[in-house]
Amino acid sequence: MKKIVLAYSGGLDTSAIIPWLKENYDCEVYALVADVGQDKNELVDVKQKAFNSGAKDCVVVDLKEDFVKNYIYPTILSGALYEGTYLLGTSMARPVIAKALVDYAISINADAIAHGATGKGNDQVRFEYTINALAPKLEVIAPWRIWNMKSREDLLDFLALKNIKTTASKEKIYSKDANAWHISTEGGVLEDTTTFNNEDCFCLSVNPKIAPNEAELVKLSIEKGVVTKVNDISLSPYEALNKLNEIGAKHGVGRIDIVENRLVGMKSRGCYETPGGTIINTALRALEQIVLDRDSLKLRAMLGLEMSYLVYDGKWFCPTRAAISAAINEFSKDLNGEIIIELYKGNCNAMSKSSPNSLFDKDFATFSEDEVYNQFDAAGFIRLFSLSAKIRALKKS
Amino acid sequence: MKKIVLAYSGGLDTSAIIPWLKENYDCEVYALVADVGQDKNELVDVKQKAFNSGAKDCVVVDLKEDFVKNYIYPTILSGALYEGTYLLGTSMARPVIAKALVDYAISINADAIAHGATGKGNDQVRFEYTINALAPKLEVIAPWRIWNMKSREDLLDFLALKNIKTTASKEKIYSKDANAWHISTEGGVLEDTTTFNNEDCFCLSVNPKIAPNEAELVKLSIEKGVVTKVNDISLSPYEALNKLNEIGAKHGVGRIDIVENRLVGMKSRGCYETPGGTIINTALRALEQIVLDRDSLKLRAMLGLEMSYLVYDGKWFCPTRAAISAAINEFSKDLNGEIIIELYKGNCNAMSKSSPNSLFDKDFATFSEDEVYNQFDAAGFIRLFSLSAKIRALKKS
Amino acid sequence: MKKIVLAYSGGLDTSAIIPWLKENYDCEVYALVADVGQDKNELVDVKQKAFNSGAKDCVVVDLKEDFVKNYIYPTILSGALYEGTYLLGTSMARPVIAKALVDYAISINADAIAHGATGKGNDQVRFEYTINALAPKLEVIAPWRIWNMKSREDLLDFLALKNIKTTASKEKIYSKDANAWHISTEGGVLEDTTTFNNEDCFCLSVNPKIAPNEAELVKLSIEKGVVTKVNDISLSPYEALNKLNEIGAKHGVGRIDIVENRLVGMKSRGCYETPGGTIINTALRALEQIVLDRDSLKLRAMLGLEMSYLVYDGKWFCPTRAAISAAINEFSKDLNGEIIIELYKGNCNAMSKSSPNSLFDKDFATFSEDEVYNQFDAAGFIRLFSLSAKIRALKKS
Amino acid sequence: MKKIVLAYSGGLDTSAIIPWLKENYDCEVYALVADVGQDKNELVDVKQKAFNSGAKDCVVVDLKEDFVKNYIYPTILSGALYEGTYLLGTSMARPVIAKALVDYAISINADAIAHGATGKGNDQVRFEYTINALAPKLEVIAPWRIWNMKSREDLLDFLALKNIKTTASKEKIYSKDANAWHISTEGGVLEDTTTFNNEDCFCLSVNPKIAPNEAELVKLSIEKGVVTKVNDISLSPYEALNKLNEIGAKHGVGRIDIVENRLVGMKSRGCYETPGGTIINTALRALEQIVLDRDSLKLRAMLGLEMSYLVYDGKWFCPTRAAISAAINEFSKDLNGEIIIELYKGNCNAMSKSSPNSLFDKDFATFSEDEVYNQFDAAGFIRLFSLSAKIRALKKS
Repeated sequence: MKKIVLAYSGGLDTSAIIPWLKENYDCEVYALVADVGQDKNELVDVKQKAFNSGAKDCVVVDLKEDFVKNYIYPTILSGALYEGTYLLGTSMARPVIAKALVDYAISINADAIAHGATGKGNDQVRFEYTINALAPKLEVIAPWRIWNMKSREDLLDFLALKNIKTTASKEKIYSKDANAWHISTEGGVLEDTTTFNNEDCFCLSVNPKIAPNEAELVKLSIEKGVVTKVNDISLSPYEALNKLNEIGAKHGVGRIDIVENRLVGMKSRGCYETPGGTIINTALRALEQIVLDRDSLKLRAMLGLEMSYLVYDGKWFCPTRAAISAAINEFSKDLNGEIIIELYKGNCNAMSKSSPNSLFDKDFATFSEDEVYNQFDAAGFIRLFSLSAKIRALKKS
Repeated sequence: MKKIVLAYSGGLDTSAIIPWLKENYDCEVYALVADVGQDKNELVDVKQKAFNSGAKDCVVVDLKEDFVKNYIYPTILSGALYEGTYLLGTSMARPVIAKALVDYAISINADAIAHGATGKGNDQVRFEYTINALAPKLEVIAPWRIWNMKSREDLLDFLALKNIKTTASKEKIYSKDANAWHISTEGGVLEDTTTFNNEDCFCLSVNPKIAPNEAELVKLSIEKGVVTKVNDISLSPYEALNKLNEIGAKHGVGRIDIVENRLVGMKSRGCYETPGGTIINTALRALEQIVLDRDSLKLRAMLGLEMSYLVYDGKWFCPTRAAISAAINEFSKDLNGEIIIELYKGNCNAMSKSSPNSLFDKDFATFSEDEVYNQFDAAGFIRLFSLSAKIRALKKS
Repeated sequence: MKKIVLAYSGGLDTSAIIPWLKENYDCEVYALVADVGQDKNELVDVKQKAFNSGAKDCVVVDLKEDFVKNYIYPTILSGALYEGTYLLGTSMARPVIAKALVDYAISINADAIAHGATGKGNDQVRFEYTINALAPKLEVIAPWRIWNMKSREDLLDFLALKNIKTTASKEKIYSKDANAWHISTEGGVLEDTTTFNNEDCFCLSVNPKIAPNEAELVKLSIEKGVVTKVNDISLSPYEALNKLNEIGAKHGVGRIDIVENRLVGMKSRGCYETPGGTIINTALRALEQIVLDRDSLKLRAMLGLEMSYLVYDGKWFCPTRAAISAAINEFSKDLNGEIIIELYKGNCNAMSKSSPNSLFDKDFATFSEDEVYNQFDAAGFIRLFSLSAKIRALKKS
Repeated sequence: MKKIVLAYSGGLDTSAIIPWLKENYDCEVYALVADVGQDKNELVDVKQKAFNSGAKDCVVVDLKEDFVKNYIYPTILSGALYEGTYLLGTSMARPVIAKALVDYAISINADAIAHGATGKGNDQVRFEYTINALAPKLEVIAPWRIWNMKSREDLLDFLALKNIKTTASKEKIYSKDANAWHISTEGGVLEDTTTFNNEDCFCLSVNPKIAPNEAELVKLSIEKGVVTKVNDISLSPYEALNKLNEIGAKHGVGRIDIVENRLVGMKSRGCYETPGGTIINTALRALEQIVLDRDSLKLRAMLGLEMSYLVYDGKWFCPTRAAISAAINEFSKDLNGEIIIELYKGNCNAMSKSSPNSLFDKDFATFSEDEVYNQFDAAGFIRLFSLSAKIRALKKS
C-alpha cells in the first residue's frame, strides 16, 4: 500500500485523479491544496471535495507570502520577461507549489507525487524538475500522460462510474490558471492567431475602454527592491501586491495577448492579466533608471534574459538560478525610493522617481557649468573612444 | 584658407557657428542641412538663413528614405531598445547625417567638419565617431567645447555683434530633436525626476486622455521585416512610417518619459514621442512571436541588447554593428505577414497575427491528438531535462 | 516492403543493425557510408561487408571537403569551444553525415533512416535533429533504444545466429570516433576521473614526451579565415587540414582529456586528439588578435559561446546557427594574413602574425609621439570613463 | 602647502616624479610602496631611495595576501581571460594598489594622489577609476600626461639637475610589470608582430625547451575554489601561489605572447609569464568539469567574459563587478576537491580530478543499465528537443 501526494485543486481533473490513483496504484491519496493567491472561491469546501473523491487526507497550505517574497520578487527584480513580454505568472508558482508537495511528501513518508498537468504543457516539466531536484527518489505520476481519458466528458463519465459527485460542467471553453500574481487564459478563440481575443479571455481586470475616465496616481515605497508601502500604508509583500492588483485591475492595466514558445517545442497563445505585477514592474524599472549605472543596467538585462528562461522552464532549484539571484541582490541593495505611477485606461506610467541612491543630478546633465564635468574632457574621451575606428580607417586609406 | 563643412539646422546655435568659424579658422563655411524628416518648417528658407549667416554655400540633402530603410529598420529589427525602453530616435539619425557630411566634405575637398552638438551630450560622440570611422583625416570642430559662450543670450549677442539677423528667442525652455522617427524633449521641468512632465514636454502626439474615445485598427503588411503596406496601401518605408506617425499620434501612442545613462557618464531625463515607431515595433515583435523559434528569439534578444548600445553610442560604422545586422537579416527573411494593431488612448496592441512562415499550429498546442506530438514523449523529455538536477540531488543525499 | 537507409560504418553495431532491421521492419536496407576523413582502413571492403550483412545496396559518399569547408570552418571561425576546451570534432560531423543520409533517402524514396548511435549519447540527438529539420516526414529508427541486445557479445551472437561472418572482436575497451578533424576516445580507464589516461587513450598523435626534441615552424596563409597554404604550398581546406594533422601529430599537439556535460544530462570523460585543428585554431585566434577590434572580439566570443552549444547539440540546420554564421562571416572577411606557428612537444604557439588588415601599429602603442594619439586626451577619457563611479561616490559621501 | 601621495616603486619614473611634484605643486610627497609580490630586490632600500628623492615619508604596505585572496581569486574563479588568453596579472594589481593609496591618503589627510603610469596605457585608467570610485574628492596627478619629458634620458637629466643620485640606466629595452601573479614584458622586439620574441622577453620562467626532461606531478587541494594545499602541505593563498610559481616556472609553464586591444583604443603586444596562475587556472577549470552542471558552466563562461573586461578596464569597485562576484561565489561553494596536474616542458594538464561534489558517475555515462537513466527516455527527449525544427520543416513542405 503506497502513499501518494497529489497536487489538488478541487477542479475536475484532480478530482478524477484521486479515484484513478487508488484504482491503479493500490494507494492512499493525500491531497495538498496550495494557496498561492488564486480565487478564494476555489478554496471553499475544497477539503470536503477531496474527501468526497476519496482522499485519505487533505491539507491546505498558505504559500502566499512565501510565493510573493521568495519567488516573485527575485524573478521580477532580475527583469525577467519571457520572450520580452510575459511576466511569468504561472511559471513562478510551480516551484513553490512543488516544494510544498515535496515537504509534505517527506513529512508523511510518501512514495510518490502526482499532479494534474497535461502532457503538452510546460507545467509538467516545472513540477517534475522541482521534485527531481529536491527529492530525487520520489516517484512522479502524471496521469494525463498515462490514462486514456481525453476530454472533460471522459472524466465526468469516470467520476460517475465511481459514484463521485461533481459540479463540474461538461463544457469549458478556456483553460485558466490563477494566483496572486496573474491569471492566464488559453484555448477557445485564442487557438487561431488571426482571431481577436474576446472579453471573456479576461476575467480579473476591466477592459481599458470601460475603465475610469479619470487617471489615478499610486505611490509605491520601495526598500531593497520590495514594495513596502502603497500610498504610504505599510503592507507585507503579498498585501501590497493584492492592493495593487485591485487598483490596476480597475484601470485595465496589465493585459497582454501573446504567442509564446513552450519549452516542449510548440507555440501557444495566451492572454495574461497581471495588473499589480505590471505596476510593480513599472515601478522597479523606473527606480532602476535613477539608481543603476550603465554597466549595471546592462548586466541586469543580460541576467534577466537568462532568468526568464530558467523560470519559464521551471529550473528554480538549480545553481544557475541561485547565482543569478545572488547577483541581482547586489543591485537590489540600492533600490530604495518612491515611485509615483499614473494609471489610466490600460496605461501605467512612472511620473515621479526619487531615491536616496539616485545618480541623477540636474547639475551634471545640463548646460550649466559644474565642478564634476568639464566639457573639454569630452574631446579626449571621443578621440580615444573612436580611436580603433580611426586606426582601421587610416589603415584602409 | 580652409573649407569647413557644417552640420547646419537653421537654428540659433549653428547660425552662430558660421560666423564664429570664419572668425577663428580663416575659412569658408559650407552648410549641409540634413532632411531626416524633421518638421518641414525648419527647412523653409533654411538656405537663405545659412547665406545670411555667411555660409559660402548651403545644400539640403534628402536622407529620409535612406534613414528609414538603412538605419531605422536594421536597428528596430534587432529589437534594440536602449535601457529597455528608448527606441533610439536621435541616436540612429546621427550616423546618417554624419555620413552625408563626410560625403559632402570629400566631394568639395573640405578640411574639416563642424557640428553644433554640446560637450555634455551623446551626439558629439556619435557625429565624431562616424567622421573618424569614415574619413579619419578630416578634422572635427565642436564649437561648444571650444568657445566661451554659455547661453542663448551669449549667442544672440554674438550674432548682433556680427550684424546677423535672427528670429531666435532668448528663452527656450526645452531642448528638442526631431526626425521622421521621433521627437525628444529635454530640460525644463524634466530636470527634476520627481516633477511630473508637462503637456509641453510633448509636441507631436496628443495626450492619451484627449485621444479619441473610439479605438482604431490599422493593418500592417510586412515583407522581410519591412512595412510595405498600411491598410492595404503600398507605401515606401518612409511613407509608411509617416502614415503610422499620423495615426499613432492621433491616439497618443508612443510617449515615454525616462531617465537614461548617457554614454559620457551622467544620467539625463527625456520625453520621447515615437508614435509610428511604436506601432512598427509592436507589429514586428508580434510577427516574431509566430515566426521565430525559441532559440531564435533568445539570440535576437541578445543581439538587440548589444545593438542598443552600439547604436546609442554612435558606433554604426564598425564591424560589430555589421555583424549583428548580418545575423538579424537571417531572422528577418522569415518576417512576412500581416499584423492588425488596435490603437486606443495610448494603448497599442497586436490583435491579429498571420504569416506564411508561422510556426503556430492549433493542432500541436491543444489537447487534441496529433501525429507530430505524442504526450508520452514528454515523460522521457522531462527525465533527461532534469537529469543533472536529479544526479546532483542523489549525490547529496 | 519498406526502404530504410542506414548510416553504415562497417563496424559491429551497424553490421548487426542490417539483419535486425530486415527481421523487424520487412524492409530493404540501403547502407550509406560517409567518408568524413576517418581511418581509410575503415573504408576498405566496406561495401562488401554491407552486402554480407544483407544490405540491398551500399554507397560510399565522399564528404571530406564539404565537411571541412562548410561545417568545420564556420564553427572554428566562431571560436566555438564546448565548455571552454572541446573543439567539437564529433559534433560537427553529425549534421554533414545526417544531411547525406537525408539526401540519399530522398533520392531513393526511402521511408526511414536508421543509425547506430546509443541511447545515452549525444549523437542520437544530433542525427535525429538533423533528420527532423531536413526531412520531417522520414521515420527515424534507433535500434540501440529498441532492441534488447546490451553488449558486443549479444551482437556477435545475433550475427552468428544469422550466419553473418564478422571479424569483430568480443572485447573492445574504448569507444572511438574519428574523422578528418579529430579522434575521440571514451570508456576503459577514463570511466574513473581520478585515473590517469593511458597511452592507448590516444592513437593519432605521439605523446609529447616522445615528440621530436627540435621545434618545427609551420607557416599558415589564411584568406577570409580559411587556410589556403601551408608552408607556401596551396592546398584545399581538407588537404591543408590533413597536412597539419600530420605535422601536429608528430609533435604531440592537440591532446585533451576532459569531462564534459552531455546534452542528455550526465557527465562523461573523453580524450580528444585534434592536432591539425589545434594548429588552425591557434592561427585563427592569433590572426584575430591583430585584425579584430575590441568590440568585435567580444561579440565574436559571445557568439562563439552560443555556437558551441548549437553545434554540440546538433542544431546545425536552424535559423540561429545560420544567423551566427552570417555574423561571423562579417568578421572573417578581414581575416587575411600569415601566421607562423611553432610546434614543440605538445606546445603550439603563434610566433609571427601579419595581415594587410592589421590594426597593430608600433607608433600608436609606444611612447613615441604620433599624430593619431595625444596623451592629453587620456585625461578627458578617464574622467568621463569613470564619471558614473565618481558621481556614485560623491552622492554617498 | 599640499600633501600628495605617490604610488612609488623605486624606479626611475617615480623617483623623478617626487622632485617634479615638489617643484610644481608646492607640496610634500608621501611615497607609498605597494608590495604585491614583485621581485623582492625592488623593495631593498626603497624607503631610502624615496627619501633621497625628497619624499616627506615613505611607507611599504604588504598587500600580498589581500591581493591574492580578494582580487586574484574572485577574478580567476569567474574564468576571466581577457580576449581569451590574458590572465589579467597587471590589471588585477591596480585596484588593490589604488585602494591602498586612497586609504593612506585619507589617513594623512592628503589632497591628491599621483602615479607614474603613462598616457597611452591602461594603468592610468585603472588607477584613476579606483580613486574616483573610492575618494571622488581627491585630486589625481598623472605626471606623464603633464610634463614635457619624453624619455629615460630626460628623466636622468632632470634628476641630475636636482642633484638626485640614481642607479637607473639610460637604456631599458623592455617595459616590465611584476607581481605575485605574473610578469609582463612589452617593447623592444615585440613592437613588430612579425618578429619572434626573444629569450629576454621572459625572465621568470625557463624556456620549455630547456625545462626538465622528466614530468612533475603536483597535487592541489581546493576548498571553495581556493587552493589550500600543494602536495598536501597547507599554505595560505599567497604562499600556495608562490609555491606553484616556483614549480611552474621550472617547467616553462604559463608563457604567452599576445597582441591585445588596450582600453584606450590601440593594440599592443606583450609577453606574459604566469606559471603558478596557469596551474591554478588549469586546476579550477578541471574541478569545474566534474562539479558544475551544463547551465552553470555556461553562465560562468558568460560572467567570466564580462568580468574580463571589467577587470581589464580597472572597474573593480563598481556594482557590476560586485554582482558578478556574488554570482560566482554561488558556484564556488561546490568547488572542493583534489586535482593532480602534470607539468612537462610548457604543458600543464589535469590528470586526476576528484570532488565530494562531483556529478560524474561512471554508471550514468556508460552502456550499463542503471536506475536513473532509461534509454527509452531519449526517444521522447529527442522528439521534443527537435520539435520546433520539425514543425518548421513541415510548414515549409
